[in-house]
Amino acid sequence: MEQYFVNKVIENNRFVIEDSETFKHVAKVLRHKPGDVIYLVDPEQNLFTATIERITDDKIETSVNKLATPSTELPIDVTIACSLSKKDKIEWITQKSTELGAKKIIFFSSKYSIMTWKKNVIEKKLIRLQEIAKNAAQQSKRRIVPQVVYVNKLTDLVDHKAQSNLVAYEESAKQGEISLLAQTLNQNPNSILCAFGPEGGFAPDEINFLNKSDFLSVGLGPRIMRAETAPMYFLSVLSYKYELTVK
Amino acid sequence: MEQYFVNKVIENNRFVIEDSETFKHVAKVLRHKPGDVIYLVDPEQNLFTATIERITDDKIETSVNKLATPSTELPIDVTIACSLSKKDKIEWITQKSTELGAKKIIFFSSKYSIMTWKKNVIEKKLIRLQEIAKNAAQQSKRRIVPQVVYVNKLTDLVDHKAQSNLVAYEESAKQGEISLLAQTLNQNPNSILCAFGPEGGFAPDEINFLNKSDFLSVGLGPRIMRAETAPMYFLSVLSYKYELTVK
Repeated sequence: MEQYFVNKVIENNRFVIEDSETFKHVAKVLRHKPGDVIYLVDPEQNLFTATIERITDDKIETSVNKLATPSTELPIDVTIACSLSKKDKIEWITQKSTELGAKKIIFFSSKYSIMTWKKNVIEKKLIRLQEIAKNAAQQSKRRIVPQVVYVNKLTDLVDHKAQSNLVAYEESAKQGEISLLAQTLNQNPNSILCAFGPEGGFAPDEINFLNKSDFLSVGLGPRIMRAETAPMYFLSVLSYKYELTVK
Repeated sequence: MEQYFVNKVIENNRFVIEDSETFKHVAKVLRHKPGDVIYLVDPEQNLFTATIERITDDKIETSVNKLATPSTELPIDVTIACSLSKKDKIEWITQKSTELGAKKIIFFSSKYSIMTWKKNVIEKKLIRLQEIAKNAAQQSKRRIVPQVVYVNKLTDLVDHKAQSNLVAYEESAKQGEISLLAQTLNQNPNSILCAFGPEGGFAPDEINFLNKSDFLSVGLGPRIMRAETAPMYFLSVLSYKYELTVK
């Protein structure tokens, strides 16, 4: 059964879907009929079943029922910050990070990034990525849509700092650093941010800047991962740690 | 510095690269010159630096030096078995699973798979996937190339059983199963296999068959992951458990 986000708080047992995109998907693409049931999630992260009662030219009238199902959100606020790469990789990172539970996804430009976003395309690109995040969040039955953000300079990452801040650093892994990620997670921070460099890695002065700004360099194991694989590794580990190994 | 697999055991301090594909990549694509250094890994999983001494029309003569660098292989033999999906997803699973340390990657046809491979294309498809695995293994600096296998029927999966056998099952996750993966990993098996269903999931009789064949149904957290995301989650968790939280 598919899920849709609605942009109004659902306060009683009736709800009218007026958002044109959701209307189109439910009524035209999937051709739902009265009697069919879908899930709705409102801005307060509540989940409802909605039974379709009537479909007009541009609205869907439903009767709704609040569910007590536990939230599907990670019990820790996770931000991943990834250096810019090609369009398909960025879209892929957005989709997969959403499935894996990220709350915020930041893209930034760094020295060895192969890409940069010109000022006049940023808004358009973010709208597209936000749309991908919304669709992935609906598909993976999340209660929120992660926020997709662009920061123009690595130094602006500090504006998004969490309680724990990490940078995945290949050189740390090469030097055999294998314990700092687990140590950090054992401290049970409320929020965590991890920065990931481009295919060519961070420049030494970028790592220096991040370390001085309290981003701890951590290794993610002995194999070299592509730039888009490392954030998936990180998010999977967070889920395992906080959702599957609860004591 | 890039790495290549060679198909002969390196026994003394000289090695001649005769494999046409490696020759082409080193001499023609990357245009290496005498004096340049590359990594070679031999069939006994030993890692060498190889200094290029002479490049002929079809051979590269090198002087080699064995390195004591620790292996990059996971300390547990991991097989992932994935239901068939579209070509690009299968290629993607092969590449990412290789980066994340899988030793064997099995594709199989199941009831709700959207694809099937006809007999006459299997060999060709496996050659292509094996090539993707080799390139990804070289790029991620692994010591072996994972084996890519196709089994025609889900029931044939039992021929590939490991010490621990799991099936990632959405229904288990929905019912709140959150501890069996961690319990299994805590038993420190030597080898582990996990089966992943297609987008539409396994059919009930398929799950019954797997459970009866000692595949334990495990949940991988509360969010619904796409078919290609779940194996990445699993492999990342194994790396964290066995490579980053060593006591």
